[in-house]
Amino acid sequence: MQEITSLNNNLVKETVKLQQKKYRDLEHKFILEGYKCVKEAFDAGIDIEYAFVLEEKVGEYEFLSEKLIKTNAVVLKKVSTTDSAPDVVAVATQKIYDEKDLKNAKKVVLLENIKDLGNLGTILRTSVAFGADAVVLYGDCADLYNPKCVRSAVGNLWKIPVVYIKNFEKLNMLFASYQRIATLPRTNNLLKQFKAKPPYVVMFGSEADGLSEDLIEFSTSEVKIEMVSSVESLNLSVSCAVVLYELLT
Amino acid sequence: MQEITSLNNNLVKETVKLQQKKYRDLEHKFILEGYKCVKEAFDAGIDIEYAFVLEEKVGEYEFLSEKLIKTNAVVLKKVSTTDSAPDVVAVATQKIYDEKDLKNAKKVVLLENIKDLGNLGTILRTSVAFGADAVVLYGDCADLYNPKCVRSAVGNLWKIPVVYIKNFEKLNMLFASYQRIATLPRTNNLLKQFKAKPPYVVMFGSEADGLSEDLIEFSTSEVKIEMVSSVESLNLSVSCAVVLYELLT
Repeated sequence: MQEITSLNNNLVKETVKLQQKKYRDLEHKFILEGYKCVKEAFDAGIDIEYAFVLEEKVGEYEFLSEKLIKTNAVVLKKVSTTDSAPDVVAVATQKIYDEKDLKNAKKVVLLENIKDLGNLGTILRTSVAFGADAVVLYGDCADLYNPKCVRSAVGNLWKIPVVYIKNFEKLNMLFASYQRIATLPRTNNLLKQFKAKPPYVVMFGSEADGLSEDLIEFSTSEVKIEMVSSVESLNLSVSCAVVLYELLT
Repeated sequence: MQEITSLNNNLVKETVKLQQKKYRDLEHKFILEGYKCVKEAFDAGIDIEYAFVLEEKVGEYEFLSEKLIKTNAVVLKKVSTTDSAPDVVAVATQKIYDEKDLKNAKKVVLLENIKDLGNLGTILRTSVAFGADAVVLYGDCADLYNPKCVRSAVGNLWKIPVVYIKNFEKLNMLFASYQRIATLPRTNNLLKQFKAKPPYVVMFGSEADGLSEDLIEFSTSEVKIEMVSSVESLNLSVSCAVVLYELLT
């Protein structure tokens, strides 16, 4: 079993670099932190390159076999992105999807300009749990492989295709024949009365700006969540969850 | 208009102390950060004691009149708890509720041992939006007036009673005549078929531990959220949102 205990080790330095988007994009790798995250990735067949494991916990990580590197708390603190360092920090290869992976997707979730990493991870987790076929990140969205998003997604980052689409023309082409549902506070169509028929794409704007005029125009139907007071608003993860629960389950 | 620009000023020091729970509990005060938060608190009649406002933005905060203190970015950075300091940091008096405020509550949300501040704030926001009458924080829960929770609640911290209940005997007494709904993954009662009749209390455990055996035994009915795969789990804010949407709206 390999052992690394020095902060000057090259692999430690390489791992720290992956805390930055620039290096994640360059290397197509990302960081996994904590037992649950690493185990779920492993079980899902994600290619784990190596994993720093706390000396005392090595016994719990036998499934990693030769990928396991025994280390100490100082190294773990350095390579992890959380306040309290976990027992394991692993590096794995990103699973990259593209438009071809949307071909058979009949129930698609689209997020526009989403920046909040916690929301992004949570929405992926919700989408998988309720049975969406794919998620589209449209416009200028946060990095899926940011460690905070990886943590919030709790093992759901690779279960369905997640595809970045930057421009409207491409979107238009891909979803021309879909029912295109805009979630909007200003419509009169209430969610409980709303019917969706696959194939459809249900579209959510960012919490700060809502859906763009482009996407509102692109939509073929509109829906809003019933609330007791129109003054209220909901967290984006919450809005997504309620709409997906109603439409998908 | 008062002006404070020194980090050594006593009011600056007092404000920084309120970043800690110990001082918030002692003083019954809390910190509000950002325009939206401060404006919503003001509109809701929350007693704002004073507000540090960035010199250039003073014009936007005339509603605060004599509570407004002109200051600079250095002071704001010091008193705020966010990475990028907001234009305003205000200090207000906590609104404290107790069991008497539950007297007329017919639709109650109970959270057990909730520690995640973002989830707590988000659940309060959701509870208000969907029309819950009160929220009970049971057992060992996080501090409602932690700045992170205040931010996630986005102005919904004081719209319905939020009551801490530490022990089971008190809970038993208060909700003896209520329908007591346990949200559980292991039951067969699906949410879409579930009916609740006020007065009821719908109970959620923490994400890590779920509901305690005490509360499961205390419950009079059980419900679970339909998911495509029983392996999946949901974020606590998401579970709450879906259940509250179905039961309350």
